Amino acid sequence: MPSVKLIEYAESSPEVRAVYDDIMATRKIDWINNFWKALAHQPSALRRIWQNVKEVMAPGALDPLTKEMVYLAVSATNGCAYCIASHTASARKAGMSDAQLAELMAVVGLANETNRLANGYQIEIDERFKPKF
Amino acid sequence: MPSVKLIEYAESSPEVRAVYDDIMATRKIDWINNFWKALAHQPSALRRIWQNVKEVMAPGALDPLTKEMVYLAVSATNGCAYCIASHTASARKAGMSDAQLAELMAVVGLANETNRLANGYQIEIDERFKPKF
Amino acid sequence: MPSVKLIEYAESSPEVRAVYDDIMATRKIDWINNFWKALAHQPSALRRIWQNVKEVMAPGALDPLTKEMVYLAVSATNGCAYCIASHTASARKAGMSDAQLAELMAVVGLANETNRLANGYQIEIDERFKPKF
Amino acid sequence: MPSVKLIEYAESSPEVRAVYDDIMATRKIDWINNFWKALAHQPSALRRIWQNVKEVMAPGALDPLTKEMVYLAVSATNGCAYCIASHTASARKAGMSDAQLAELMAVVGLANETNRLANGYQIEIDERFKPKF
Amino acid sequence: MPSVKLIEYAESSPEVRAVYDDIMATRKIDWINNFWKALAHQPSALRRIWQNVKEVMAPGALDPLTKEMVYLAVSATNGCAYCIASHTASARKAGMSDAQLAELMAVVGLANETNRLANGYQIEIDERFKPKF
Amino acid sequence: MPSVKLIEYAESSPEVRAVYDDIMATRKIDWINNFWKALAHQPSALRRIWQNVKEVMAPGALDPLTKEMVYLAVSATNGCAYCIASHTASARKAGMSDAQLAELMAVVGLANETNRLANGYQIEIDERFKPKF
Repeated sequence: MPSVKLIEYAESSPEVRAVYDDIMATRKIDWINNFWKALAHQPSALRRIWQNVKEVMAPGALDPLTKEMVYLAVSATNGCAYCIASHTASARKAGMSDAQLAELMAVVGLANETNRLANGYQIEIDERFKPKF
Repeated sequence: MPSVKLIEYAESSPEVRAVYDDIMATRKIDWINNFWKALAHQPSALRRIWQNVKEVMAPGALDPLTKEMVYLAVSATNGCAYCIASHTASARKAGMSDAQLAELMAVVGLANETNRLANGYQIEIDERFKPKF
Repeated sequence: MPSVKLIEYAESSPEVRAVYDDIMATRKIDWINNFWKALAHQPSALRRIWQNVKEVMAPGALDPLTKEMVYLAVSATNGCAYCIASHTASARKAGMSDAQLAELMAVVGLANETNRLANGYQIEIDERFKPKF
Repeated sequence: MPSVKLIEYAESSPEVRAVYDDIMATRKIDWINNFWKALAHQPSALRRIWQNVKEVMAPGALDPLTKEMVYLAVSATNGCAYCIASHTASARKAGMSDAQLAELMAVVGLANETNRLANGYQIEIDERFKPKF
Repeated sequence: MPSVKLIEYAESSPEVRAVYDDIMATRKIDWINNFWKALAHQPSALRRIWQNVKEVMAPGALDPLTKEMVYLAVSATNGCAYCIASHTASARKAGMSDAQLAELMAVVGLANETNRLANGYQIEIDERFKPKF
Repeated sequence: MPSVKLIEYAESSPEVRAVYDDIMATRKIDWINNFWKALAHQPSALRRIWQNVKEVMAPGALDPLTKEMVYLAVSATNGCAYCIASHTASARKAGMSDAQLAELMAVVGLANETNRLANGYQIEIDERFKPKF
């Protein structure tokens, strides 16, 4: 059960509805997922987080599929069930194949493994890895 | 200080040296970084982890730069200083631009933020996000 | 399903019952939640953890609501569903408003984001942030 | 060593300088810490993150000291050294006493402990903890 | 719902079936758990991960029960529900008693608590803790 | 730099000194490490945490070496540098061999990897893994 009442479109204030409309228009969809309905209990947070998502996930130096896969990699690392489900769906929609998902998960698993080996053995950073400017 | 003595190339056993040689040949470099020198205190672990890295990071359905950026995203999420340093270097070598690094970090930061919002508000997974087979 | 059998009040040993009674008296409630019923399979652990909770969560330099909100902030960061549910309930009981919950989650989300930006960019600690004694 | 060149005030573009000026004016200080100097390599990210920090950390339903302590609680949970150092300094500046720091850390430690006990024992959420609307 | 279709034994390819057969023979069981059925959508990943598990979890300098308990300790720390359930079952099968489970969880909880106290207070490593070689 | 002034033995109050004396007597050592010197700025927290450590780490259903290795496994998973250094030292003192350290790290790495595969693929818990009572 969510910690706050979900705000449905039909009962939303003009301020919330404006954000919902922008989410649906930007994503070319006709529904709002639960994440936004929970944030809507504080309209300023809803607007702020949506603006961040819209700006960060827009195509740029990285393409949308790469961004969705990075999002999924982080969510799998943190074990956020909601985020894994929603960003697996987004990545699929952006074109992620079964083979890409498998390789993504393989890299995520491996990085999580070697992160602990490097920390656990107290390994010091090689001089050659330090950036020069 | 590392937890175990680092095994330098000059003092390595034939079993360790074979792995070191394969690392340098595969990566087209002439040095071994500290991570492998620590693992080498148990040659079977050195060989096993290297085989995993070699297989997982090879080009496939995802290109090498994407894989390095996912590795860096996971390492930043976990806060592994060694891994962040080494995989920032690898990603740079694979061609990561300043703009790509900036967008990668923006997605990593945003995903870590929304992961906690989704968990913190106890948001339930929308039916539409559940895969059908 | 819990990993161990939950110990109900009616079937509890005198040692466990004494802790259950103290929990209910301290909190002015008439029931025991599942967390304690699981710990009770080892009475010494039940008593030890309860003594810690009782001491740490008592009013002091920080008021009870602030402590509950910090508890919730940590639980949301770690993604512990049980702890998020129980400490959202506790914080609500201690007076947390919808607006306070929204601002708490906003800070938790932001801190999780900037933690990764600081780590991901390998930013060094400014001299001015180092305490002087 | 940071992953990108830090942008000093003297060498900053007008867009970056405007954000730096706003940071110093808002915080009533005369210097910029390394975090912002690293973000500045991508001015749009610098502006976006600063706007988020400014909006989220402003006084509201929670006072500034409480917000700084929550930020520190999250940073200690994640083990972000930079963030712990900078937000300990901020919380001190906002008035955190030694006794408040000690109680904050006690709650953070306890929450991290019980989070793992609840997860480790696979404890199910009590019906009474589920919100009703 | 899993992100990929689970591959049942009856419908598996010869390559997948060979791994399934080895899992069942090695573990002396007659069924395959969901983890492997999901990995099987990419047979090379299934084989690689299974080879790692088989090699790492074999008796050696640490006995199988100790290894299962360490696995459970890590899984409880990360909050991976699937892994906690499966490795609690494995540890039970390897002989873990209720008393051992209770002490294991007590250590896991305590370590998670003191990890945050050490980080939160920015405590520096004592010279005496640094290994000498 | 630690967040609070470290309390040295020579300058400690009788209450703090009593805990320091008990730590040294219990561990059969003649010095106090930084962790306790930081906690000592709040004597009640020092005493409480030490009592927990003393009780939890005492020999019981698990032997001291196993407990130290579990502590190290958790600390490596969380990336707590201070705790990794101090508990590697403790585990060495309790008899941990190079081979045991290597196998411990191998299990820790593997568990961290498979934790993310299980979460990332949204794998559901098999009925057979659910405990029956």
